[in-house]
Amino acid sequence: MAIDIPDIKRVLIGEPFPTSHEIHERLDKVRALAVFASDPISSNAYATEAIMSVIIVLGSGALRLTLPLAMGVAALVLMVIFSYIQTILHYPDGGGAYTVAKDNLGQFPSLLAGGALLTDYILTVSVSVAAGVRALTSAVPEAFEYRVIIALVAIALITWVNLRGVRESGTIFAFPTYAFVGGVLLTIGLGMVRYFGLFGMDPLPTFENSVPATSSLVGFAYIWLLLRAFAGGCTALTGIEAISNGVKAFKPPEPNNAAKTMVAMGTIAMSLFVGITFLSTRMHLVPTEHGESILSQMTRQITGGGIIYYWVQIFTALILFLAANTGYQDFPRLSSFLAKDGFLPRWMQNRGDRLVYSSGIVVLAVISSIIVAIFHADEIAMLPLYALGVMLSFTLSQAGMSRLMSKVGQLKPGETAQTDNTHIHYERTWRWKKALNTVGSITTGVVFIILTATKFLDGAWIVALTIPLLVILFKTINNHYKKVSISLSTKTFSEEDLMDVADVAIVPIADVHRGTLRALQYAKLISTDVRAVCVSTSPGVHERLERRWARFPKLTKDIKLVIIDYDYRDILAPLVDYVDRVNRLEFDEQLVTIVIPEFVPEESMANVLHNQTANILRRELRNREDVIVIDVPYHIPAVIEENGNGVKRPSPAQEPTV
Amino acid sequence: MAIDIPDIKRVLIGEPFPTSHEIHERLDKVRALAVFASDPISSNAYATEAIMSVIIVLGSGALRLTLPLAMGVAALVLMVIFSYIQTILHYPDGGGAYTVAKDNLGQFPSLLAGGALLTDYILTVSVSVAAGVRALTSAVPEAFEYRVIIALVAIALITWVNLRGVRESGTIFAFPTYAFVGGVLLTIGLGMVRYFGLFGMDPLPTFENSVPATSSLVGFAYIWLLLRAFAGGCTALTGIEAISNGVKAFKPPEPNNAAKTMVAMGTIAMSLFVGITFLSTRMHLVPTEHGESILSQMTRQITGGGIIYYWVQIFTALILFLAANTGYQDFPRLSSFLAKDGFLPRWMQNRGDRLVYSSGIVVLAVISSIIVAIFHADEIAMLPLYALGVMLSFTLSQAGMSRLMSKVGQLKPGETAQTDNTHIHYERTWRWKKALNTVGSITTGVVFIILTATKFLDGAWIVALTIPLLVILFKTINNHYKKVSISLSTKTFSEEDLMDVADVAIVPIADVHRGTLRALQYAKLISTDVRAVCVSTSPGVHERLERRWARFPKLTKDIKLVIIDYDYRDILAPLVDYVDRVNRLEFDEQLVTIVIPEFVPEESMANVLHNQTANILRRELRNREDVIVIDVPYHIPAVIEENGNGVKRPSPAQEPTV
Repeated sequence: MAIDIPDIKRVLIGEPFPTSHEIHERLDKVRALAVFASDPISSNAYATEAIMSVIIVLGSGALRLTLPLAMGVAALVLMVIFSYIQTILHYPDGGGAYTVAKDNLGQFPSLLAGGALLTDYILTVSVSVAAGVRALTSAVPEAFEYRVIIALVAIALITWVNLRGVRESGTIFAFPTYAFVGGVLLTIGLGMVRYFGLFGMDPLPTFENSVPATSSLVGFAYIWLLLRAFAGGCTALTGIEAISNGVKAFKPPEPNNAAKTMVAMGTIAMSLFVGITFLSTRMHLVPTEHGESILSQMTRQITGGGIIYYWVQIFTALILFLAANTGYQDFPRLSSFLAKDGFLPRWMQNRGDRLVYSSGIVVLAVISSIIVAIFHADEIAMLPLYALGVMLSFTLSQAGMSRLMSKVGQLKPGETAQTDNTHIHYERTWRWKKALNTVGSITTGVVFIILTATKFLDGAWIVALTIPLLVILFKTINNHYKKVSISLSTKTFSEEDLMDVADVAIVPIADVHRGTLRALQYAKLISTDVRAVCVSTSPGVHERLERRWARFPKLTKDIKLVIIDYDYRDILAPLVDYVDRVNRLEFDEQLVTIVIPEFVPEESMANVLHNQTANILRRELRNREDVIVIDVPYHIPAVIEENGNGVKRPSPAQEPTV
Repeated sequence: MAIDIPDIKRVLIGEPFPTSHEIHERLDKVRALAVFASDPISSNAYATEAIMSVIIVLGSGALRLTLPLAMGVAALVLMVIFSYIQTILHYPDGGGAYTVAKDNLGQFPSLLAGGALLTDYILTVSVSVAAGVRALTSAVPEAFEYRVIIALVAIALITWVNLRGVRESGTIFAFPTYAFVGGVLLTIGLGMVRYFGLFGMDPLPTFENSVPATSSLVGFAYIWLLLRAFAGGCTALTGIEAISNGVKAFKPPEPNNAAKTMVAMGTIAMSLFVGITFLSTRMHLVPTEHGESILSQMTRQITGGGIIYYWVQIFTALILFLAANTGYQDFPRLSSFLAKDGFLPRWMQNRGDRLVYSSGIVVLAVISSIIVAIFHADEIAMLPLYALGVMLSFTLSQAGMSRLMSKVGQLKPGETAQTDNTHIHYERTWRWKKALNTVGSITTGVVFIILTATKFLDGAWIVALTIPLLVILFKTINNHYKKVSISLSTKTFSEEDLMDVADVAIVPIADVHRGTLRALQYAKLISTDVRAVCVSTSPGVHERLERRWARFPKLTKDIKLVIIDYDYRDILAPLVDYVDRVNRLEFDEQLVTIVIPEFVPEESMANVLHNQTANILRRELRNREDVIVIDVPYHIPAVIEENGNGVKRPSPAQEPTV
């Protein structure tokens, strides 16, 4: 038995959900924190290392500069968070950068934000999965050479889970997130205790990993290097905007709960970041080119490599895979918004059997897999591409908020107003808020420029090129849809505008058999001017056709038989030519009908045994403006029974009724 | 501007030839020898080495056994040639093993011969090209690591030349063939002179390449090894049957000229073979695993590596590529015979623009390229697969001739008779001829068994498996065509047997727009019972559709609007379900018509922006027994102009005529 594709799909994806069964789960703060925080919190697996791996060219002695840089990043994060709280409070229905920019800045900035975020969501998946695999291979070095395969399998698994439809149930997320946070906090605590020599514990091991400086920099070059290192640390900012999109998922009062959760998330993420950076610099840890991560080194040294070490590594990997999963929430949602507005293919807004945006999920999986393969699952190599998009979206989103605050400022006390995506009312403190958003926008804008400039040659150019190309793509797609919509519009169309249908039916035939007879019979029903057209490539074909034609006088009586003698083998050209001539010379500006007899074998494999002339002809005629194609199928059954009088008949369903 | 595929094809392949321009070139014996002999003569590039590379396990001392084995092969060749002369004389229209077996032994043996020959023709291309590349890399060792690429490029070039249509013009073939024969004969002559110390020339250099025996064999194992070595030498037999297929290409009297040419060919090929073998064993040459060929070693030593050496190497490569080219003559021709008899897809008998069997050429190119890639262009590794097929076809062909001779023997003097593919008359000497063919058949049959047995584990099993699988494939294809032919046959069919066409037209619509209106208009022309069916996935869609529907009262007056409210997103399932229900419940055993409105963007890339529902629906309905599908296209022009009164109209061609 052949395996049925729909059956495989059922087993893999599950039974379809009805549209009305959509679930609107409301999250309490504890679970919401777990759902939204996996991405920013998981950045701790690589953010410190991203700073160190830049500074190391100045030698291991310079690594102490990591801590102040990390604290700069942390300050930036806190500022972005407070700026975003404004967004949450003003867009309770969800205020992603695309929406806020569209609402306040116009189409181009919104598309820029959309392109930037889509790029970043893809990189979230690639980077997080690669980092998760590194957490595993740091613990199990034997697996290192299989890292690309492991990463691709991980992406496939996450894709599969998402195609089945993950309801954003906080429970799944809660455990690994808190387990990771707990494990790392415990490690940091233990490290602090030992570093400061409390409770009489062994002092923390420190190393003399004296890596010589590979360059000595002064002046501008030195500052440039520090900026590059800072840019590396900015990867810690990715994902902190996610809550602003998901305000509706909170229990009421939604905006307040969301804002509180965002503050908690920032605090936790930055505590870990600063703690890890503090200890790893004090322990004189040094990043290795391809091998154990800084977090793994630190945990191993502090805990002695026991159960806490494996706990942290396992939950690092898990929280990173969960962070990748947030890409699977964000990318399909944003691309469905863009598709709904006509900037991406319409089918990206269709939800699949399990009420998820299946096409977006598949597109994301394919692109992020390609990136993982190209970069050999090395997340440190991907980091220069990362965080650019999110920083650009911060800039645009906060610029939009700043505009919104100006609108708020124009209202009179007690007055309200409506924008496309939210409504606003007078606020006394609008100036302060506007100032906060403006400063936030300018700061993240500057950081965006720093990121692009310092990482440009390391790979940021790819993103700097991709985002404008995406905007062009969005516009091109949008123009096409506009054109289609105008062209199909019935606004100024009346029934009298319909094109006339010519009373003619052209039936291309290769021979007289049951299939062509059926087509001729059908053609006679719909037209009084039926023409059977046959291209004869040899006198034998010509003669045989006329002989067989004569055997069915009743059917063929009113049909004109056109035999085209042709001295080449490509019979398609004269057929198409005949149709074009009839269309142009006899029935100009009318719809002409072609009836194509086609025999369909029951086994689809058997198609390869036939010339496929019908298929090619249909495809060719599809390009004609005003040709209507009728397929008259004749099925060849898989089994033919021979009956008594030597007549071999197909299956009973095909028995004539008369 | 987009590049047009037909234009590329024109440039690559050339202008099409009319069917009537077929050329029937007649070859004189000198050019015919060159055309047909490149394959067997070129075997000298590897046949000696194929024997030696088996014997070498007994040590270099045992290599002297090569000469008697080569003489055994030469004797076999002469016997086959004399046996084949019978075939030439009795099948002047061409007597390939497939034809002779079909004529005398029946279907199964003929398919066996066909499968065996197709396999061997593919290997002719792979082996010859690989050996040709080795001739080049023996002279230029730096090219060795690129041998697979070189071989694939060579196959691509040969394919290209053949798709353009090589007329078997002897002139192209004559020069390299005779240049190779001349060069090798010169080398052999020079070698003999030096070996026998004539004319006071330097004695031939001999080497003490003392390779120790890696095994010492006695009894059965020793004989088995000799048989394996003999089997290796049998590759010299490939291609000698080609003349029997091409008798018609000779100048009259065709059979006599063909027979004489065959004798000349065998004599030349075997002289070279024995000469090369004699000298290379006397010079104590030893085959190397991956490197210089024996012929190259011998020529280099005898000539001192000067101009004669490079002459021989270049023409060895060229004659081997010409030998590959014979595969391009034989494979497409034989597969077209099989296709004509319904054992291969019918399209393999279609001749392309340049009157060659293009599909056969492409199939051959693809398969032989795959084999070259798998075997890393190492012809010695491919040889165990080679010559099996041709030996089986010799056996069957001569068994067939033996049968034919019995028929001849049953005639009375002066009497003639007709078989399917030739006619025979009484011959006094039929007993002798039958004896010759019978002995030939038995001998080659025994050799076939030796070949299969001794090379089985080295790769012959692949061929031993492929040939029966091909026969099964031929039978399966044939059964399918028989079924189709019975099913379409009009022998017992009369006009009254045609299935009734139901007066119903179902028009699936997603919205009311110019495209769907055109489809509805068409549907009304062909049926009085038109039903517009729309699957509504949300109340909004339902309401909007009804509102727009009401705007065209004249058109929609007699049309039944069926709106199916559906709580899933896959709108295809309810549409197909509706069609099936109408078909089964209302119009059982009648043909039901579906009119599918479809909009066609001018730019084919834009198809990706649409849901393709029409395409998928058409593909789905194609599986229904009695559903006729009408495509009503609506073209979206690439550019839309806006005219004065705000109405945007498509191109003028689509202006309504009323």
